[in-house]
Amino acid sequence: MGGDHAPDAVLDGVELAAERHPQARFLLVGDEARVGPALERRKRARQACTLRHAPDVISGDMKPTAALRQGRNSSMRLAIDAVAVGEAAGVVSAGNTGALMALAKIVLKMLPGVDRPALAGLGPSSRGDVVMLDLGANVQCDARNLVEFAVMGDQFARAVLGLPSPSIGLLNVGSEELKGDERVRQAAEILRDGHVGLNFHGFVEGFDLTSGTVDVVVTDGFTGNVALKTGEGALKLVGGMLRQVFTSSIAARLGYLLARPALDRLREWMDPRRYNGAVLIGLNGVVVKSHGGTDGIGFAHAMDVAMDMVNHGFNERIREGLARISTDSGSPGASPARLAAAR
Amino acid sequence: MGGDHAPDAVLDGVELAAERHPQARFLLVGDEARVGPALERRKRARQACTLRHAPDVISGDMKPTAALRQGRNSSMRLAIDAVAVGEAAGVVSAGNTGALMALAKIVLKMLPGVDRPALAGLGPSSRGDVVMLDLGANVQCDARNLVEFAVMGDQFARAVLGLPSPSIGLLNVGSEELKGDERVRQAAEILRDGHVGLNFHGFVEGFDLTSGTVDVVVTDGFTGNVALKTGEGALKLVGGMLRQVFTSSIAARLGYLLARPALDRLREWMDPRRYNGAVLIGLNGVVVKSHGGTDGIGFAHAMDVAMDMVNHGFNERIREGLARISTDSGSPGASPARLAAAR
Repeated sequence: MGGDHAPDAVLDGVELAAERHPQARFLLVGDEARVGPALERRKRARQACTLRHAPDVISGDMKPTAALRQGRNSSMRLAIDAVAVGEAAGVVSAGNTGALMALAKIVLKMLPGVDRPALAGLGPSSRGDVVMLDLGANVQCDARNLVEFAVMGDQFARAVLGLPSPSIGLLNVGSEELKGDERVRQAAEILRDGHVGLNFHGFVEGFDLTSGTVDVVVTDGFTGNVALKTGEGALKLVGGMLRQVFTSSIAARLGYLLARPALDRLREWMDPRRYNGAVLIGLNGVVVKSHGGTDGIGFAHAMDVAMDMVNHGFNERIREGLARISTDSGSPGASPARLAAAR
Repeated sequence: MGGDHAPDAVLDGVELAAERHPQARFLLVGDEARVGPALERRKRARQACTLRHAPDVISGDMKPTAALRQGRNSSMRLAIDAVAVGEAAGVVSAGNTGALMALAKIVLKMLPGVDRPALAGLGPSSRGDVVMLDLGANVQCDARNLVEFAVMGDQFARAVLGLPSPSIGLLNVGSEELKGDERVRQAAEILRDGHVGLNFHGFVEGFDLTSGTVDVVVTDGFTGNVALKTGEGALKLVGGMLRQVFTSSIAARLGYLLARPALDRLREWMDPRRYNGAVLIGLNGVVVKSHGGTDGIGFAHAMDVAMDMVNHGFNERIREGLARISTDSGSPGASPARLAAAR
């Protein structure tokens, strides 16, 4: 029921996902009167889905606290409940992000040793896709949160990109050790310590997000959210300019036709739907947030991401990674004390 | 002497600036043995310039504290000194940003009521150029700093873009009033107060930087620096992809030739040199920072920015704007107390 085009965009997505993953079964949670007829119209989805009625909907502008109090019979809550009891392996929602975070945190609980969930996603670079987190779940973060994000981002890159030892960069205003605020410098010091066991590259800057310098870019949710949307905005701006270029003269129109196959590949590559599906990580369960404005193609991508997480045993691996940085690991390394101080 | 291609890039820039501004005179400060012969080779620059010898240079990796202690006879310091004594109307440097800030702050002093200088610059949007600040001078900011940046950004947009009443947006993770951290919410509350006298639009998000939602985007130096470099990185990525597109087949090459005039305009518009020249504002004097890696065309743009600042009486106007938000303005409005609390 979430997002701007529910339930149709969601069902279009399920139709595509059912085609791509013939072995999968889908539990749809929503208003039976609206979802039922829409489901009937889709051949593959109809066969792959079970529909569960939810009388309420969490609106896009509902505050997380209100969602917690009033959302007990909402589609979002019942879908998360299904993950909690093991009925579903993961949940995908295009609804209210703040409510999804709050409900998922209460119902599924955090993984041991994690302070807060983070939102992780993929973006394009000149060397393939790059993982970035946090994309906006935590507007204020301390050094400890950033270190946790690095551990979780490492596992995310292994799961979704299939990399054996992803390189991790910490976003800063410069690459020198002394740059930035106390928080990023402290996080970098902990990450440099071999104890954490990551392939830590060091500080990276804004242009490293797209230059492929590292596989995972770690930052706080404020900066990450702004960077994500700034990058999207820049790509959209160029897309608009290109449309103007290719309609500016008859010669340019003809030029467009000649270069069209390659331009179409570029358009496809720049398509934000290809990057839809941010994972709420750090939870005891797979939770994927789809962009609210996406269509079926975008929603199907978000479902692909959830499948990757599940198939990769993602949360088990994060649990192992976190154990290496936890204060009760009993290791003789200097990190635990430093981490405790960083809290 | 600053930047990657000194002194040639600087002198190429002066040659262009001398052509564009025939009434202007330029004071070059640097190593006579290196600058002198390079100046001799440039007809217009030679006639428009006075060369002042500086025995020392502040290197790109020198710390600001070291620049303050050891830089008394450096080209950067002597150039700023010339502004302090009124010999020059402003200074343009492609050198070490941290050192430039520190020296300018000590030598020129802050405008009354300003805590710290900010770095302001222009970027492209679908509705014309947009002012953004802070681009990295202050990695940690409180609400009061953000309000000061808004006042200074307003004047910057009037001076450089010639807008009579620029709209101001405060960068956040969402546009709703409750989004973000305490700091941005408090700054927004002050800016909404008519007392400050700005055309305050409210919160804006990352994609608003390029969508032309507002004329001025205000943020802290950490976020601003990351957003600037992320946007640059995204444009560079698309530029690289376009080059691949147009060399991917013979038809695409031919298409490029047909669309070339329009593509050249796009390339020109995306050219980062066109946006070179960030202004260090809040100081008692005009100080412009050029990108260290730019060439003569870029450096000339930075000089254009400095000229605009000077011709517009920029600092006088900022002074007036700041008086409206200062705690001793004697106004009955609620803002002064709120501002004091925001410190």
